[in-house]
Amino acid sequence: MNSCTLCIIWTYDNVYDVHISSALLSRILKMEESNPKDFIYDPKLLQEIDFDKEHKIQYNPPISLSKPAPNLVVRPFSRQDINKAQCDVMFSSPKSYFITVIEDTSTGQIVGNATLHVEYKFYKKCGLRGRIEDIAVHEKYRGKQLGKLLVEVSTLLARRVGCFRVSLHCFAKFIPFYSEQGFYIDELENLMWLKDSYLEKN
Amino acid sequence: MNSCTLCIIWTYDNVYDVHISSALLSRILKMEESNPKDFIYDPKLLQEIDFDKEHKIQYNPPISLSKPAPNLVVRPFSRQDINKAQCDVMFSSPKSYFITVIEDTSTGQIVGNATLHVEYKFYKKCGLRGRIEDIAVHEKYRGKQLGKLLVEVSTLLARRVGCFRVSLHCFAKFIPFYSEQGFYIDELENLMWLKDSYLEKN
Repeated sequence: MNSCTLCIIWTYDNVYDVHISSALLSRILKMEESNPKDFIYDPKLLQEIDFDKEHKIQYNPPISLSKPAPNLVVRPFSRQDINKAQCDVMFSSPKSYFITVIEDTSTGQIVGNATLHVEYKFYKKCGLRGRIEDIAVHEKYRGKQLGKLLVEVSTLLARRVGCFRVSLHCFAKFIPFYSEQGFYIDELENLMWLKDSYLEKN
Repeated sequence: MNSCTLCIIWTYDNVYDVHISSALLSRILKMEESNPKDFIYDPKLLQEIDFDKEHKIQYNPPISLSKPAPNLVVRPFSRQDINKAQCDVMFSSPKSYFITVIEDTSTGQIVGNATLHVEYKFYKKCGLRGRIEDIAVHEKYRGKQLGKLLVEVSTLLARRVGCFRVSLHCFAKFIPFYSEQGFYIDELENLMWLKDSYLEKN
């Protein structure tokens, strides 16, 4: 625990290796000593969620934001989770990237992540429109309702920051999972993708 | 033209009134004198698009990025198009909000707008994922292929800034329109919305 520990961030289609420093790890364990600027959003946002009162999803057995499972902590993504200069834009875009991770403090590994990405609109009084993306839990940690917790934390964050609308897109097999989380399909709306050929340089 | 002119930004579900100053208007007319910082993205990005070479969509009669129609100019959204303090976040988020407008320089009105919103990912080498949003053209200016032009300009911008994926969502009646623009529906992906009740405060 005194040296850098390899962490992996899981996404649907990628495994991304990052290093987490022991310094960060000890700051996480003593969250009150951490510098909020180290995190992609203020950790207070999570601390201020009154999960017992606000949560709407049922967990069986019960888990919570503050107690997801032994050794696991839910916290914002950290500047030190990743060492990519080009990611600075994420940290310098105010109140846009609400990336939450679950870390196993016994190993220093990130075992789950979720992104609430917020777009500011120039209409609706500069309203905020949220999107939930990149929900993933390491296969070894599945069956602990952590994905469910990550999605609910993201929706609670969306409500807290004042999103007027939140969406996600998913494969058909995940529709029942997200339906239980309060999501529904509006048959009037259609998701369309741009063909790759339109993105390739001439 | 020497006083403030009322402009309106159209979106699907909103009409948003903004004022445009004559100072801005004259700067637009002499784009080379404008301060790039006034715009939400660098106007050079539009100027650098070799539309004749890069465009893939057919226009009949032919129109182009530099010549959409008499009196109309295509330019980035400007800080002075809107006077809302809370919109500052859009201008202080680097390379995230590529909002393009079409302005009728004879009236100073914004008659069309399109947003390419870019999300930075912590995976795919911090790749960029684009979304096209808020395509709208004032009803008086329809039938001039301006919506088509706005969508194509947004996809050309997406390619230029290096998006690896671009999507949009739309009502069924617009599917043929976006299909002609290079968009397709992937039956495996489903768009889901969060119920409003999950966003309301307790």
